[in-house]
Amino acid sequence: MTDLLWPGDDRAGDVFTDAAVLAAMVRAEAAWLDALVTHGVAPADAADGLDGLIGADDVPLVAAGAEAGGNPLIPLLKLLRNRLEARNPAAAHWLHKGLTSQDVIDTGLVLCLRDATDRIRDDLAGQSAALVRLVAEHRDTPMAGRTLTQYAVPITFGLKAATWLTGILDARDRLAAVSLPAQVGGAAGSLAAPVALAGSPIVARALVETTAATLDLPVREPWHTARAPLTGLADALVTCTDAWGRIANDVLVGARPEVHELSEGAVAGRGGSSAMPNKQNPVLSILIRRAALAAPFLAATLHAGAAAAVDERPDGGWHVEWSTLRTLARRTVTAGSQTAELLAGLQVETSWMTANLTAARPGIDAEQRSINPDAGPYRGATDQIIDAVLARAAETRRETREGEPC
Amino acid sequence: MTDLLWPGDDRAGDVFTDAAVLAAMVRAEAAWLDALVTHGVAPADAADGLDGLIGADDVPLVAAGAEAGGNPLIPLLKLLRNRLEARNPAAAHWLHKGLTSQDVIDTGLVLCLRDATDRIRDDLAGQSAALVRLVAEHRDTPMAGRTLTQYAVPITFGLKAATWLTGILDARDRLAAVSLPAQVGGAAGSLAAPVALAGSPIVARALVETTAATLDLPVREPWHTARAPLTGLADALVTCTDAWGRIANDVLVGARPEVHELSEGAVAGRGGSSAMPNKQNPVLSILIRRAALAAPFLAATLHAGAAAAVDERPDGGWHVEWSTLRTLARRTVTAGSQTAELLAGLQVETSWMTANLTAARPGIDAEQRSINPDAGPYRGATDQIIDAVLARAAETRRETREGEPC
Amino acid sequence: MTDLLWPGDDRAGDVFTDAAVLAAMVRAEAAWLDALVTHGVAPADAADGLDGLIGADDVPLVAAGAEAGGNPLIPLLKLLRNRLEARNPAAAHWLHKGLTSQDVIDTGLVLCLRDATDRIRDDLAGQSAALVRLVAEHRDTPMAGRTLTQYAVPITFGLKAATWLTGILDARDRLAAVSLPAQVGGAAGSLAAPVALAGSPIVARALVETTAATLDLPVREPWHTARAPLTGLADALVTCTDAWGRIANDVLVGARPEVHELSEGAVAGRGGSSAMPNKQNPVLSILIRRAALAAPFLAATLHAGAAAAVDERPDGGWHVEWSTLRTLARRTVTAGSQTAELLAGLQVETSWMTANLTAARPGIDAEQRSINPDAGPYRGATDQIIDAVLARAAETRRETREGEPC
Amino acid sequence: MTDLLWPGDDRAGDVFTDAAVLAAMVRAEAAWLDALVTHGVAPADAADGLDGLIGADDVPLVAAGAEAGGNPLIPLLKLLRNRLEARNPAAAHWLHKGLTSQDVIDTGLVLCLRDATDRIRDDLAGQSAALVRLVAEHRDTPMAGRTLTQYAVPITFGLKAATWLTGILDARDRLAAVSLPAQVGGAAGSLAAPVALAGSPIVARALVETTAATLDLPVREPWHTARAPLTGLADALVTCTDAWGRIANDVLVGARPEVHELSEGAVAGRGGSSAMPNKQNPVLSILIRRAALAAPFLAATLHAGAAAAVDERPDGGWHVEWSTLRTLARRTVTAGSQTAELLAGLQVETSWMTANLTAARPGIDAEQRSINPDAGPYRGATDQIIDAVLARAAETRRETREGEPC
Repeated sequence: MTDLLWPGDDRAGDVFTDAAVLAAMVRAEAAWLDALVTHGVAPADAADGLDGLIGADDVPLVAAGAEAGGNPLIPLLKLLRNRLEARNPAAAHWLHKGLTSQDVIDTGLVLCLRDATDRIRDDLAGQSAALVRLVAEHRDTPMAGRTLTQYAVPITFGLKAATWLTGILDARDRLAAVSLPAQVGGAAGSLAAPVALAGSPIVARALVETTAATLDLPVREPWHTARAPLTGLADALVTCTDAWGRIANDVLVGARPEVHELSEGAVAGRGGSSAMPNKQNPVLSILIRRAALAAPFLAATLHAGAAAAVDERPDGGWHVEWSTLRTLARRTVTAGSQTAELLAGLQVETSWMTANLTAARPGIDAEQRSINPDAGPYRGATDQIIDAVLARAAETRRETREGEPC
Repeated sequence: MTDLLWPGDDRAGDVFTDAAVLAAMVRAEAAWLDALVTHGVAPADAADGLDGLIGADDVPLVAAGAEAGGNPLIPLLKLLRNRLEARNPAAAHWLHKGLTSQDVIDTGLVLCLRDATDRIRDDLAGQSAALVRLVAEHRDTPMAGRTLTQYAVPITFGLKAATWLTGILDARDRLAAVSLPAQVGGAAGSLAAPVALAGSPIVARALVETTAATLDLPVREPWHTARAPLTGLADALVTCTDAWGRIANDVLVGARPEVHELSEGAVAGRGGSSAMPNKQNPVLSILIRRAALAAPFLAATLHAGAAAAVDERPDGGWHVEWSTLRTLARRTVTAGSQTAELLAGLQVETSWMTANLTAARPGIDAEQRSINPDAGPYRGATDQIIDAVLARAAETRRETREGEPC
Repeated sequence: MTDLLWPGDDRAGDVFTDAAVLAAMVRAEAAWLDALVTHGVAPADAADGLDGLIGADDVPLVAAGAEAGGNPLIPLLKLLRNRLEARNPAAAHWLHKGLTSQDVIDTGLVLCLRDATDRIRDDLAGQSAALVRLVAEHRDTPMAGRTLTQYAVPITFGLKAATWLTGILDARDRLAAVSLPAQVGGAAGSLAAPVALAGSPIVARALVETTAATLDLPVREPWHTARAPLTGLADALVTCTDAWGRIANDVLVGARPEVHELSEGAVAGRGGSSAMPNKQNPVLSILIRRAALAAPFLAATLHAGAAAAVDERPDGGWHVEWSTLRTLARRTVTAGSQTAELLAGLQVETSWMTANLTAARPGIDAEQRSINPDAGPYRGATDQIIDAVLARAAETRRETREGEPC
Repeated sequence: MTDLLWPGDDRAGDVFTDAAVLAAMVRAEAAWLDALVTHGVAPADAADGLDGLIGADDVPLVAAGAEAGGNPLIPLLKLLRNRLEARNPAAAHWLHKGLTSQDVIDTGLVLCLRDATDRIRDDLAGQSAALVRLVAEHRDTPMAGRTLTQYAVPITFGLKAATWLTGILDARDRLAAVSLPAQVGGAAGSLAAPVALAGSPIVARALVETTAATLDLPVREPWHTARAPLTGLADALVTCTDAWGRIANDVLVGARPEVHELSEGAVAGRGGSSAMPNKQNPVLSILIRRAALAAPFLAATLHAGAAAAVDERPDGGWHVEWSTLRTLARRTVTAGSQTAELLAGLQVETSWMTANLTAARPGIDAEQRSINPDAGPYRGATDQIIDAVLARAAETRRETREGEPC
């Protein structure tokens, strides 16, 4: 999968590609089939991991067949059943029994989203670590504070980096609060078919729990028309791009030759121009900023879809989510990776910071003079603020470590 | 305050009006002034509650003066100082000392948003209660389940109402997770001026804490350019309108004369037409749906503003938030109130539900026949799902009660 | 009308205020009533200009009554009829006969939009004139061209101003292509009631034409659910704010103290800070940029409303337009006025342009060296491009003049 | 190219695929190279059509190389030069001389957009023809007019179809007004390098004109930061999806089993479900509605990019356009094709229209009774309105025919 028109998209690798979506839908079907067998609803000979039946080569066929029923699961299922028939007719018979298209598609989307958010969480952690280093190193590096584009009062670059870090921590906390559940509800969200198959609601709900457990997803009552899990994820992703865009904006100002305070780390072959040999463009920041410009519209599209829900499955509000989620997820993964690299390599030109601050005098000291002309460095509670932000970064890191299985 | 072009806007009453914003900014200034006196930074005779100095009549003057400095705080401050000068020169001298415009404006916005979210939380609770009643009453009321506009399988209206309730509970939980902190950071977020005034970072930070405590707001390190508190609130509000829009869509379908399953409670004078005496329009649902159509764009504007943050105070990304927050907040309050009323008065035409279900047969029973022709009512795990949703509604209610001060 | 939270909003004055909307709806009713009398459908004694019946003081009452029927026309009509009854019972009887709410509201919105676009057109002309002067004055003023934030090749400020002017001319042409028609269709767009009143389709359509002529609006077949006139206007408005935002962005970069090439003209009392006496903030540019950030979301809301049209009058898609149009229109008027003032007063620091260009050497000359080291000033087709843009500006001016009544 | 998650995407075929973008950029380079030779700037032996050098297989390599310089042209150019070197060293030397990346990328985008708009124009014409037939056939087919979901007054289905047609004609006119020009400006839009190469502005501008003529594109002064051509196109595309969404909404209401007035033509294998054998879902309408929900956000993204323009090439505002334009264009092509098919196959159930209208009585006749109880069919100016819309459809068809080369 490539997107020639979104440079850097290859950073997202296999996340949420068409092939990954197919595989995720097959995983959802396999988990359900396994649950049917486990709970004795289907016979033991229906057991089949569905491995090796569907691959990336099947994408064009499934895609071409998706319009007829309005979703890609229907042609996938047909293909899967046909191929399974030869190797395991019982499995072919029991495949998808009790499910509805939306169960499999929603669960498949969630699996792809989880892959994306895993990547993003890692990159947020990397960004946080890089910023902790920058804050520590530049706690005392003086520079001009700027508001509304003009010189305000002196600050340190460590303080600025701590505000960047605050944005990263906000994004991490927001993402941590997102829960992406499995979807199993049957045709109209009542689990009617599973209960009819299983003979009792208790067994039917056990099927749901087993399926979710197999996929390592939380359980939630059917949410075919209650889409807060997806809008919450989308909001968290745009909270990430907001934080990254804010950093990129500062780097783009700092990289202007007249300001010269910040630059992207030099990487061979990066930042060149097709015609101007002199150019060293802040490419990562530009591409991050691009993602931050677009993301609010994508997350809003998810909300528009959620707000259009009607009946027991909506007539378009659901369908608009799929490709939008993929685009938002891949772009966020890409921008997260770019931001991690940007921060890891960021060059801080302390001499230019000093020079600009000097040039900003005496105007930039006017507030201080108006309060107390002899007050010294006017650094306020910079240390306390930095320490508080660093403590927040450290706390969350500990939590994450504790959350890991030992 | 009226908005002739957003019918129902008067439901939002004084929430976030221009006068309320002025008052909130005065409250923020008063809390800070009080903290300065409390901590001995300002002399005791500077104590002044700033009461009675500014009123709704001052809105035009302050509004007209807002452009010159780019924000309404500057002309408000001038007015406030002038009037205070006569009654308490010491207070006039100490007023706003150590603060920056953004501290007061952000805190003022937060106070107005809290008023809005208090209203919305109440209405969510009312909606939840109404839905709990509807779910209980119609747990066994049969109706046609519909997907993609067509008959799917039978459900009960109680199950449908439980999915509505899920959306409401999602919105409530989302809103409960939002934290709206005070903003005190000084010109460039370093607390430089407060420290210069107070003599130490410890006292300066105590000023911040006291100010926040007076306003009953949480403390947060300066967030002038880390806007997740506001985007998180905006996302929560649009999660509300998504949930309400989804309900309104179902009512609008159910209210179509050919479907006839749901109608808004009759209220004298409501739903009429300027020319057609026969009309009884589902006005509340229409106006709720309207809000749900618009809200994603407003929340996205907040994200676009957050992503445009740069320097220590942004050049437009901050300014775009103010009016957008107000519009989103007032519209959400209005739609919340309308939805509460809609649900409280909703008329359920069970005979039409039965008639439509009967007309949908035998097609609507096809899935059941394909699994087990003799399976009975095909209601699946309706009871278990309903019970789980009701339990979630009840749990959250308990939590809220526990959270209250005794 | 004030919007404390959108500094500069008072520039829009009475445009599209609640009072203006009331007045416009009354004008629409009056034009129709007049047509009824003119064509002999209503008796001569029903003639009434509806003057002096409704004023700004009526806004709260009408606003409060708007929810019941879902629109402000219904309570307005009631009020109007009541007051008219005493002075002219025949007029009270014939008032609104044959119309539907949407006819009057749409036509009222169109009248308000026309007032807004008249203001915007004037400001675009003023901006164009200011830019023509800047281009002429600075045709040969050398400065550094910048791409992707970095030095590219030398340009002149006149060329840059010509690209600004191109944006202005695009906006003007786009706005000129917009047609805002009257709306008269009756309850379901068939003119059924007017024909029933008038006795023939020919007379009914003459009523429409006379009404439109009275209001000086173009005629269009009923467009209750075909909203391209409104989305086209919204798109034109955001094309304006795009062009202005692009200029503001350049001024904001140029106004950074390290760049120092551009500044807003000094105006007493403008650009100050609540705490920093040193500040001279580029306030107009900040506020213009703010408008450009928000406008795409507002225009998109209009499209979302248009796309939600259904039946012969939509259930929310129509209602979402009203307040959104007003906000977009007033903000565009405000930003247009601010941009006109910004351009009229723009200070160009040619010495800094020269200094920055000098500092950019020799890198900025690298492309030139790679082609032809001895090529002289490397100004390309600057003069030809400028002349073409100036010619375009002049042509349009001529056209406009010809279009005026003599 | 497939998009598994946007069912129907294969209808867009090769339009704006990555391979098509590569080919379009090569065409732009070839046209410029040809112009250089034609005008004697490059020697005759530099002539090369660049045929056969780049193909779809190169997409992954170019895509992977796009991040380093921030755009796909730089790696494409490197590849092209390497391959050309062997076959035509002179062409390799002159390739891209005088151009900047943005020239080639913008022109490439425009070529792809033109392919998309050609497809859309054809489908609009087909839709118009289908609607002309429906209007003619059902001019007198009575049905209930509905406003705000409730019965209003009787109309004919021909009148409703005429309002659909009005939307289609609006979209067509809007698209016809769009001009997509070539982009040639050189590094900073001054044509500095072309002039340096060509020796004079006159020859340089002749190069531009020849290039544009070769590509059959209009000429425009450099528009690197004046993006109205692209936002205008995006606005026109969303005007299309608005019109189609409005039709789909009516079909989705009409296809509800209780209403039963409209249905999509039966196509073998279409509209089925993965679990419910009874289903016949209105798939085309659902997918069209989906496109209409998403498109406003995409067009707005283009405006946000345009409004972020700064310097002589923006730092992200440009980059956000590319993929967004592709998505918007392909989706609009897809939805246009689906709408054409929908309208061509639409089934009109006149007996249900009659039955619903009968059931709506006597309420639906209330307006008529209030005016004139004996007025007959109450069809108003239906014929005149229909004739006017049909005349508009016919006029435009003539124009288009005249515009074609003979």
